[in-house]
Amino acid sequence: MYRNLLKQRYRLVFGYIGNLFVFFPLVMMLPVLYCIWYPSVFVDSLPFLEAAVICFAFGILFKLIMKVKPGAPITVQEGAIIVFFAWVFGIIFSALPFIFGGYLNFTQAIFESTSGLTTTGLTMVNVLAIPDTYLLWRSILQFLGGAGFAIIMMSAILGPGGLGLYKAEGRMDNLVPNIKSSTRTIAVIYTSYAVAGILMYRIAGMNWFDAINHSLTALATGGFSTRLGSIGEFNSLPVEIVTIVLMLLGATGFGIHYTLWRRNFRAFWKNGEPKLMFLIIAFFTPLIMAGTMKYFYESIGTQFRHALFQSVSALTGTGFSTVDFIPWNQMGLYLLTILMIFGGNLDSTSGGLKQYRLFALWKLLWMEIKMYFLPKNALLKEEIWKGETKRYLNHSLVKEILLVFSLYFITYAVGVGITASYGHSLAFSAFEFASALSTVGLSVGITLPSSPVGLIWTETIGMFLGRLEFLVVIYAITKLLRDGKVMLAKRRND
Amino acid sequence: MYRNLLKQRYRLVFGYIGNLFVFFPLVMMLPVLYCIWYPSVFVDSLPFLEAAVICFAFGILFKLIMKVKPGAPITVQEGAIIVFFAWVFGIIFSALPFIFGGYLNFTQAIFESTSGLTTTGLTMVNVLAIPDTYLLWRSILQFLGGAGFAIIMMSAILGPGGLGLYKAEGRMDNLVPNIKSSTRTIAVIYTSYAVAGILMYRIAGMNWFDAINHSLTALATGGFSTRLGSIGEFNSLPVEIVTIVLMLLGATGFGIHYTLWRRNFRAFWKNGEPKLMFLIIAFFTPLIMAGTMKYFYESIGTQFRHALFQSVSALTGTGFSTVDFIPWNQMGLYLLTILMIFGGNLDSTSGGLKQYRLFALWKLLWMEIKMYFLPKNALLKEEIWKGETKRYLNHSLVKEILLVFSLYFITYAVGVGITASYGHSLAFSAFEFASALSTVGLSVGITLPSSPVGLIWTETIGMFLGRLEFLVVIYAITKLLRDGKVMLAKRRND
Ligand SMILES: [K+]
Ligand SMILES: [K+]
Repeated sequence: MYRNLLKQRYRLVFGYIGNLFVFFPLVMMLPVLYCIWYPSVFVDSLPFLEAAVICFAFGILFKLIMKVKPGAPITVQEGAIIVFFAWVFGIIFSALPFIFGGYLNFTQAIFESTSGLTTTGLTMVNVLAIPDTYLLWRSILQFLGGAGFAIIMMSAILGPGGLGLYKAEGRMDNLVPNIKSSTRTIAVIYTSYAVAGILMYRIAGMNWFDAINHSLTALATGGFSTRLGSIGEFNSLPVEIVTIVLMLLGATGFGIHYTLWRRNFRAFWKNGEPKLMFLIIAFFTPLIMAGTMKYFYESIGTQFRHALFQSVSALTGTGFSTVDFIPWNQMGLYLLTILMIFGGNLDSTSGGLKQYRLFALWKLLWMEIKMYFLPKNALLKEEIWKGETKRYLNHSLVKEILLVFSLYFITYAVGVGITASYGHSLAFSAFEFASALSTVGLSVGITLPSSPVGLIWTETIGMFLGRLEFLVVIYAITKLLRDGKVMLAKRRND
Repeated sequence: MYRNLLKQRYRLVFGYIGNLFVFFPLVMMLPVLYCIWYPSVFVDSLPFLEAAVICFAFGILFKLIMKVKPGAPITVQEGAIIVFFAWVFGIIFSALPFIFGGYLNFTQAIFESTSGLTTTGLTMVNVLAIPDTYLLWRSILQFLGGAGFAIIMMSAILGPGGLGLYKAEGRMDNLVPNIKSSTRTIAVIYTSYAVAGILMYRIAGMNWFDAINHSLTALATGGFSTRLGSIGEFNSLPVEIVTIVLMLLGATGFGIHYTLWRRNFRAFWKNGEPKLMFLIIAFFTPLIMAGTMKYFYESIGTQFRHALFQSVSALTGTGFSTVDFIPWNQMGLYLLTILMIFGGNLDSTSGGLKQYRLFALWKLLWMEIKMYFLPKNALLKEEIWKGETKRYLNHSLVKEILLVFSLYFITYAVGVGITASYGHSLAFSAFEFASALSTVGLSVGITLPSSPVGLIWTETIGMFLGRLEFLVVIYAITKLLRDGKVMLAKRRND
């Protein structure tokens, strides 16, 4: 009985997943469209066509076999499984062009598409040796992952059920009650920023191709670059300023952008995240200047320029750089590691612990001190704004912070240990794995196509867990194990 | 008006502190008593006599000026101030003999007595160049700090008011309702263990002096040794086994010892801490064998012997060692650092995050997964035992864990950064400051009498904050700042 019900539910789950991947090939064709302007590289589009066909076939097969009625409701538990598999299949399909093109092996390709969709930006690709089509594909993956793989793709397809998914993905900002209008607002905001970014980069002197790619990956706080030396290769102050603006926009939460678009400046001002982000950068930039930059540059101006860029890039989780980190002293690496662990705003494209949680923690500590001086049983409510919504520092928020922080640091400790076990120093291991887990993408050169397979997979899993914020993955795997046990037990009884 | 009230209250606070230090000279005379058997070193007792006289004069002065009625009630806020100043003055008075004896300068002596009273065990002293009287004084400081500076000294003096202090100190185990009987039970338990430890060490082959010192410092999870090479210098398996047993006893919470003394084995079995401690050691010992020990020793037995000893010493926060850590690879240092951060049981003499909180965190995660599969609004209660008391995983525990963990890691991040800024590698800095903050005492050689003064003070503050678990110190300083502002503002108005 229960086994049959379970079968039926899984049919529904995979039907929805099929629905999703029927549309994914459209995205895969975007790099091919690019070739219309550059007919010389048309041959490079073949791997994308092959991948798109496979993805479409997979989607249509699932859709036909499962025969899902549109709008059939799914439970929160099933939502976790959909999110989990949507990401896993999304990563696999996105990796196919790299494999079919012969540029990466399976492990490297999965790493690359995970790094793209999670907006990390660590790379297995030699950007000088790969056609532009692939560079564009990497940038598109980041924009897609950044603006919300789930929200853009799924909510459009799943309708109201999508809200559950969005929550399941760990980004719980229901800034607009209606999910469709929310999706549309986010799409409008991000597209406007992206177009503005492209134009600003053009004005700053980039060519169109570089401008498009960097605007997409800066806004997504992704950090994939078309250049070997990242943003530093342009050696242009205007380009760096545009990049800093875009990175900060990318790391700002949807809800906060929304207050600005609605000209609700009062609500904007109530949000603690932008202020905290500003304070952290203002605190760390001079530390990095005094701790590291002064050993490289004589001019205070140059020290400041590079310290600021690297601080913003680390905290926003973008991963662009204007310098090489390998010769840095441990002090500078340590400070950047802390910034990477902090991360950007909640409901942004950044990873890490998130400013909202850090701000809430600060408020909690402050409330605790105030309560110590109040009579016993006195009630104290601490406001904490999120976009246009006033919230309070309550039990469920405290619990969420503890769980997310703990899971972050447990994963971090294990990942650093594994990285160090390959013989890397603790400073390098702590830096590189924070970069993966917070989906930042800065590197001290540990992550290379020639790295040990075990290390590449460790980082891949780190990026995946970091982007999905652990709990969804735990829920999904727990449910799969439970249901799998039921299925197996029944089969044995049959 | 308010200023006068405040004055009156502070008179009470300092009166109580005076009360305490009238009795402290008795403890200071213990190393002098030791000299009765060894008349040749009687001259070394003079610094102790001087320190005792100063301490007594200070106590009697405060007592006379303040004229406190015995049993006058104090508030929780005032309790924090008493704990704070009791520790600060306790540290200063305990440091005096080292200064008067000419063996340490002010910074070094404060470090040494802080390391003693907090049961850390990092040292500024060359144990070969200092008379036995001082070695005994260090051990007595650790036993005093371990068995509970506050509970033993203060509760005896303050009576029922002491309970508030005990709570203020961050050890909230009211295992017996009556504080006096509680103090007596703890004293009986610890004295029995100490005597048993001395005898076991004697049987294992130590001389009386070594046996007394090591038994006191092992039980206190203090780790001060009379030998330059710590326990390793004895190169004796029986000595190591006795030490492991004593360290584990020291790291076990008062409440859990109490269940055993009452033969309440059911309650003992319900407590998660001993099991978790066992599991962690069973998990980390083989990792340290495979990650580090195999490069030093061929025999699996020797690898196991040293890996186990170091694991137990780090997790229990004792800080005895049988090997030198400076040649260790970063993997081994990293694993020991994690063990030091974990720490022993709550209400024990260990520092760190504490097993109780780690166990509660594990339960919280487990509960969260279970709740995910239950209908919305379903209630789920998770038991979590503490000594003989059944408790539940509730909001206040979750909040406490978040606050303590956060304050621990914020302090840790700052301390590691400061240590690294003196040019030490991240691996060494992370190891040494974890050792100070979790009051462990293992060292990679960063902590030396010749270390920069700034570094010594950083570690001193780390030990102090780690032992008092942050919040009491924050409360006390906040209250002092507040009251100070009132006093100054009023004075200006007068
Ligand atoms: K990134
Ligand atoms: K210790």
